[in-house]
Amino acid sequence: MRYTLAYVGIQVRNLERSISFYRDVLGMRVVRRQRVPETDGEWAELRSAGSKQMLELNWYPDGSKFFTGPYRNGDELDHIAFACADVERAYGELIAKGARSGHPPFAEGGSMLAYVEDPDGIWIELSGPVPGD
Amino acid sequence: MRYTLAYVGIQVRNLERSISFYRDVLGMRVVRRQRVPETDGEWAELRSAGSKQMLELNWYPDGSKFFTGPYRNGDELDHIAFACADVERAYGELIAKGARSGHPPFAEGGSMLAYVEDPDGIWIELSGPVPGD
Repeated sequence: MRYTLAYVGIQVRNLERSISFYRDVLGMRVVRRQRVPETDGEWAELRSAGSKQMLELNWYPDGSKFFTGPYRNGDELDHIAFACADVERAYGELIAKGARSGHPPFAEGGSMLAYVEDPDGIWIELSGPVPGD
Repeated sequence: MRYTLAYVGIQVRNLERSISFYRDVLGMRVVRRQRVPETDGEWAELRSAGSKQMLELNWYPDGSKFFTGPYRNGDELDHIAFACADVERAYGELIAKGARSGHPPFAEGGSMLAYVEDPDGIWIELSGPVPGD
């Protein structure tokens, strides 16, 4: 299957404070921002003018099942995202090629998601359409 | 000054092993790869076909001044890179706006580089031309 790098997502302690830094200090633009009921958290996608590169800021509150807080140094790298056409098949294919499982496929907010780990334990997100949609 | 997000760089324990994963398992292409005398290390830049997003893999050997090893969980997020026209001026501007200093400007391999920290302590690389070049 074809996998397309979509963005790198970092985890931040305080979403407003980080948006302020990347927007007001480094001049990036907030392209999308969304609360996520499944994580009780929120994310924001930012770009620089004239750049196709995207950076995602991820925030999870205390008590979210996605947050093993308190925030420790090293929590900053949240995940690296790849888009693909069929998340179930991709997940099986990558596991068969030796990737460790992070989280099996599940639907979230209109997308299928799954996670595997790279050789250093970095979470790789696979995202794609929900089958039948 | 205008800052353009260039890529996100992650730190890996074993460059060959990680290139093999991102290239042979996830289908990315190695765009550039370079040894860095200043760090005793090496980096590789990778893209997916059809994507403008770039991922940098950074590796530093034991004993490099850039490596505080052994590798700890959390070392994975190495830095986020922004291109700009004048690194000295950008560094001063960002410090004046409240960013913490990571490393003052220096020349490396034909580029000027400097580092500041984002609100969570993530290293932000500023890169640009060497003045007078």
